[in-house]
Amino acid sequence: MEPRYRTIAGQLARSIREGLLRPGERLPSLRSLCRDEGTSLMTALAAYRHLEDQGLVQALPRSGYQVLARERPPLAPPATPRPGRADLSRERADIIAKTLAAVADPGLVPLGFGCPSPELFPLGSLRRLTASLLNRRRELWASYSSPPGNLELRRQVARRLQARGMAVDADQVLLTTGAMEALALSLRLLADPGDRVAVECPTFFGILDAARNAGAQVLELPGDPRDGVDPARLDAACRRRPVRAAVLMPAFANPTGSLMPEARKRAWMDTLEARGVALVEDDIYGDLAWDGHKPVPLCALPRRDGLPNLLVGSLSKTLLPGGRVGYVVAPSPWIERLADLKSASTLANATLPELLAAECLASGLFERHLRRFTGRLQAGVGVLRDSVARHFPPGTRMSDPRGGYLLWVELPRERDGLALFHAALERRISIAPGCLFTLGGGLDRFIRLNGGAAGDLDRAAAVLGGLVKGSCQNRSKP
Amino acid sequence: MEPRYRTIAGQLARSIREGLLRPGERLPSLRSLCRDEGTSLMTALAAYRHLEDQGLVQALPRSGYQVLARERPPLAPPATPRPGRADLSRERADIIAKTLAAVADPGLVPLGFGCPSPELFPLGSLRRLTASLLNRRRELWASYSSPPGNLELRRQVARRLQARGMAVDADQVLLTTGAMEALALSLRLLADPGDRVAVECPTFFGILDAARNAGAQVLELPGDPRDGVDPARLDAACRRRPVRAAVLMPAFANPTGSLMPEARKRAWMDTLEARGVALVEDDIYGDLAWDGHKPVPLCALPRRDGLPNLLVGSLSKTLLPGGRVGYVVAPSPWIERLADLKSASTLANATLPELLAAECLASGLFERHLRRFTGRLQAGVGVLRDSVARHFPPGTRMSDPRGGYLLWVELPRERDGLALFHAALERRISIAPGCLFTLGGGLDRFIRLNGGAAGDLDRAAAVLGGLVKGSCQNRSKP
Repeated sequence: MEPRYRTIAGQLARSIREGLLRPGERLPSLRSLCRDEGTSLMTALAAYRHLEDQGLVQALPRSGYQVLARERPPLAPPATPRPGRADLSRERADIIAKTLAAVADPGLVPLGFGCPSPELFPLGSLRRLTASLLNRRRELWASYSSPPGNLELRRQVARRLQARGMAVDADQVLLTTGAMEALALSLRLLADPGDRVAVECPTFFGILDAARNAGAQVLELPGDPRDGVDPARLDAACRRRPVRAAVLMPAFANPTGSLMPEARKRAWMDTLEARGVALVEDDIYGDLAWDGHKPVPLCALPRRDGLPNLLVGSLSKTLLPGGRVGYVVAPSPWIERLADLKSASTLANATLPELLAAECLASGLFERHLRRFTGRLQAGVGVLRDSVARHFPPGTRMSDPRGGYLLWVELPRERDGLALFHAALERRISIAPGCLFTLGGGLDRFIRLNGGAAGDLDRAAAVLGGLVKGSCQNRSKP
Repeated sequence: MEPRYRTIAGQLARSIREGLLRPGERLPSLRSLCRDEGTSLMTALAAYRHLEDQGLVQALPRSGYQVLARERPPLAPPATPRPGRADLSRERADIIAKTLAAVADPGLVPLGFGCPSPELFPLGSLRRLTASLLNRRRELWASYSSPPGNLELRRQVARRLQARGMAVDADQVLLTTGAMEALALSLRLLADPGDRVAVECPTFFGILDAARNAGAQVLELPGDPRDGVDPARLDAACRRRPVRAAVLMPAFANPTGSLMPEARKRAWMDTLEARGVALVEDDIYGDLAWDGHKPVPLCALPRRDGLPNLLVGSLSKTLLPGGRVGYVVAPSPWIERLADLKSASTLANATLPELLAAECLASGLFERHLRRFTGRLQAGVGVLRDSVARHFPPGTRMSDPRGGYLLWVELPRERDGLALFHAALERRISIAPGCLFTLGGGLDRFIRLNGGAAGDLDRAAAVLGGLVKGSCQNRSKP
């Protein structure tokens, strides 16, 4: 006989399919479900969790369950950008600082921030493990974690990459203060002042700034929001002048969510080898595939030209946003040179986060958390896509990612992402305007939203949609 | 009537003065003192603490009390170095890495490491405060601490500098991943590739590497182990070619322990202004004056030429070696530019260490800890000086610091610090060879020892002395 909770879940699923419960609508509270169905709280909870596992509803932080969109909204994916020649410099730095500060303001809905909501992390387990660590490792706060960093964590990082098809051992892993330090060190290692460094367009603003700080000339290669950059673009660029290094995000790129097709990886490595271009692979979202199939890193492909493949990752987006536990993986002797640079950059990492991360990975807690976590992110992006489809004006387009938590939205013609950023801040919502993700310009109509953010995403999208329909005209065409 | 503990302490003090109890010798155990004097454990402990307060004895970690040297050993201070032209590059990087790794090896006596022993830090209080923080701040591990970092901690840092005579507020403080990041960012801010940056010789190896990584040409100004560098040396150097920035450690410099005389500070600031040289003041030992009188920062002196005074500090040497809590203090707009550089260097700091540090400073725990801590460091350096005086061969010279925990030792002619480093490692002792503290060479006969290290310092010094007497001849003159 079917368990009671599945019967209840089945009835609710039917109501959702038949449109009696609509996307965005809240399910009855657990208490009223118990009353109506004459059942226990445990059974009611199991029913809702079953619906959640089926992707039909999502749990809202501390406030019940909500029906998810039944199908993908019909909007088209945004266009491949055409990078221009603008440079916002100081204004850009201000917006980055404001975007980062927005998350510290508890009154804002942080749709612009690049990290999922604290509610989605295993806070209770982290607290218990920390207390246990402090009892077992008496001298923890008085001990340095010098490069290359905690051995057990390096082993765990290597093991996880091995499971994804990359031949690597703990000696090839250097722990860093977040993936940002790993990126900055990698670019300083590979590029001398004046060298050309190729990046995707759009791409994470930290990559642009790290390349500039290394003195490199940044070459932006337009990427498609579904498949990322075509290697033919790098090949064409190298015909004019050599490129020293390329920074790519094959797995669920920031901000577009693009995923490099498996079939394209060999072509990429062939191009890198043929043109003598070193690779920096930013893999911070590599663990966030919604279907659980973590992509093979591009770095896993062998190369024979003596140039290095560097892989950068972190636990900041998946386990410990407050820990600053990042890493870079490279063959010898590159990894030793990175460690030297690290010594003169931050000398060491905070000790406790490394130990805590090592325990979470070794115990299996991390992998169990990831399964639930990616489900929540998928649900959040689903809600956001549905809301944008309903509330934004015609002509809006958006990405359709398969992992991560970012949604890349192209506003209709004559609309401006930066104007929307300012208007939204006044309505207590932060977004990330497209201009952050390029030095060359050309992304004025784009914005990045965070499907892992806390708060009522549907309501926030409605406010944003209203602003887009209203006043946020492109400033350059008044 | 004199309390009983003072009577007992007085008798012991007399025995020490009369040579019945000799430097390095252990006092009777507390248990046997109780038995012999027919007194309580509390009284016996109070007697020993009184002797400790008088600087006559020091507590050994978990193993009783030891008599300290009665007077300063008679060795002369080491010579002012003459920087040469050598560059050890890769060998130097290896030694730095080995020195840093030495502390992670529980079998080594870490005399080469740059941080006091874990036993000297308030481990119990730190553990309790951490547990309390994790209970109060549920989302701590899931929260970023973005630049400029935790406001309460920035307020506390500003308050402490105000108390030392520097006009500064929290908006002028940027929290960093240790003082190392603060130094690296400061040099990248101030120096363009090819610019000349003046440093003390000898100086902390991280300063040399950070300046090199910024592309600067490093100009080493020889410093005296008591008073540091004479500003006339900078003035003379500027006559030939401009110098963009100077990195100085006025308070208990690493490695010499030199202290800039108050009377010399105005002359330094006048020279910096006259020659248009920006200042980076490394103040990480500013809190470690043994007599409790924290020096006025050089940055506290006003300057009128529009160039910035940057002050760098951290809690890594005083409270939280495993926390990587550093800071840089600068006027606007320099502090905002440093925050931009920080965003593209490590993006954020670990959250928990900042919160923990803020609580330690605000509650007064830090200041109470410092009083005891500096007493222990003074005692440790005293033991080490006495031991070096007894065990090292004639011709050895050493520094005579008034704060911190470092001892700078010049070996007799024909002896070599790097050879001693390798020989000592085989005897399970790490030291820091002088060659680390210069790019130009000329410090082959010097070593740096750590008076705050754990273990039997006297025995370690005896082993080192034996090695110096024996085989550690200068490699370049076989």
